[in-house]
Amino acid sequence: MGTDRPLIVITNDDGVMSKGIDALIKYIRPLGEILVMAPDSPRSGASGSLTVQIPIHYQLLHKEIDLAVYKCSGTPVDCVKLAVDEVCTRRPDLIVAGINHGDNSSTNVFNSGTMGAVIEGCLEGIHSIAFSLCSHDPNADFELLSSYVCSITSWVIKEGLPKLTCLNINFPNVPNYKGLKVCKMARGKWKHEFDPCPRKGDQQYFWLGGEFVDEDSDDKLSDHYALANGYVAITPTKLDITDYAYIDKLQQEMDLL
Amino acid sequence: MGTDRPLIVITNDDGVMSKGIDALIKYIRPLGEILVMAPDSPRSGASGSLTVQIPIHYQLLHKEIDLAVYKCSGTPVDCVKLAVDEVCTRRPDLIVAGINHGDNSSTNVFNSGTMGAVIEGCLEGIHSIAFSLCSHDPNADFELLSSYVCSITSWVIKEGLPKLTCLNINFPNVPNYKGLKVCKMARGKWKHEFDPCPRKGDQQYFWLGGEFVDEDSDDKLSDHYALANGYVAITPTKLDITDYAYIDKLQQEMDLL
Repeated sequence: MGTDRPLIVITNDDGVMSKGIDALIKYIRPLGEILVMAPDSPRSGASGSLTVQIPIHYQLLHKEIDLAVYKCSGTPVDCVKLAVDEVCTRRPDLIVAGINHGDNSSTNVFNSGTMGAVIEGCLEGIHSIAFSLCSHDPNADFELLSSYVCSITSWVIKEGLPKLTCLNINFPNVPNYKGLKVCKMARGKWKHEFDPCPRKGDQQYFWLGGEFVDEDSDDKLSDHYALANGYVAITPTKLDITDYAYIDKLQQEMDLL
Repeated sequence: MGTDRPLIVITNDDGVMSKGIDALIKYIRPLGEILVMAPDSPRSGASGSLTVQIPIHYQLLHKEIDLAVYKCSGTPVDCVKLAVDEVCTRRPDLIVAGINHGDNSSTNVFNSGTMGAVIEGCLEGIHSIAFSLCSHDPNADFELLSSYVCSITSWVIKEGLPKLTCLNINFPNVPNYKGLKVCKMARGKWKHEFDPCPRKGDQQYFWLGGEFVDEDSDDKLSDHYALANGYVAITPTKLDITDYAYIDKLQQEMDLL
């Protein structure tokens, strides 16, 4: 294996058997050596969670020139850590997660396993990108994303990203795209989040569901606005999350306690 | 029940049976009406994860004047959502998580279930605070924290916090504190993260472990520095995580693809 080609780690949260990860492997395989480490079952909503109470396990599923596919019993973050720390024989140049079956825009970033993996990659100092299609259909057609995924990934390999910044890229579920729009995370929250799932004699079982209420619906810079208007939404996401502007004021208040 | 008292939702990630949550209930009970909704078992490292593939269940364990304690089969974020959406009869004034058995400073914020709950509360527009003690001892003594937890919580009830900002408060494991220091999140990353847990004939089992390497060890504003020097570290954490400064430059680059 030529070690001069970029080493790209691919993961996701829909699991190694999903259609979206197959599409991602296919689209970015020309760009480098690929190591896939993905959960052995769906892990949607895994966020940045870790497996701490039981050991995790990985297993090689498939190997050919410049491609190795592993499954892992852990979360998306476990997958990234395991790939980088244990399985890769050199430091990866890039972490790519997806293609997610479903929207990871706006505040979904805080619960998404796809973004959990990308945040982990970014914290490890590796350029990291998440791709998501706004469709939960397990048989979604990803072909329209192909050239975008390839050209954006290729650009990140060449140019890099700022330290502690990763990309959250969402594709609207439309027949064609108006272009690429760099966005801010829309603010919003979920409402009516639970659907009853009563069990004989017990009304306290619920399915998580709900509807998202966009609080930035008029903001043309938001990722929701971009998606609603047919653009691919690229949200640069910063992991330096201290509220610096608040430090001095809060210190003054705490000094009075 | 008097509805003029603040309604405070308490949760954690160590589970409803942990000593830390008992201490938290005790210390802030004088400040309002308390509803506890906490995981029925330990959920350390749960981050912002959601339970999406199975229903979640909650159950009342204990009720007295101005205190109701529930356990929940879900994650810390599920607990907050369930408390706010289904169980509280009015909108909570505050979400408090902890007291965590272990350090949640620095980049641990991205994997902590305690901070996952607090981030969820903050996204719901409710003032939210996490308290953690830098000791994993299940029998840790929390008494030294008592007056700090009570006075900081009381201050937040009275003064509030900026929109999309929550507090990540960590206490060093020392016999007394030098004071309260408002901090930035230390940058750093984990190294050597896996300990082998070989199983007969299979070397691919691992325990998550590792050591944290502080990349900001000289920065006197960092939470790690504060903790290492005997201060209570208060890190204001901002959930508006778009890299605004990078938007224009990235858009120019994407326009060329």
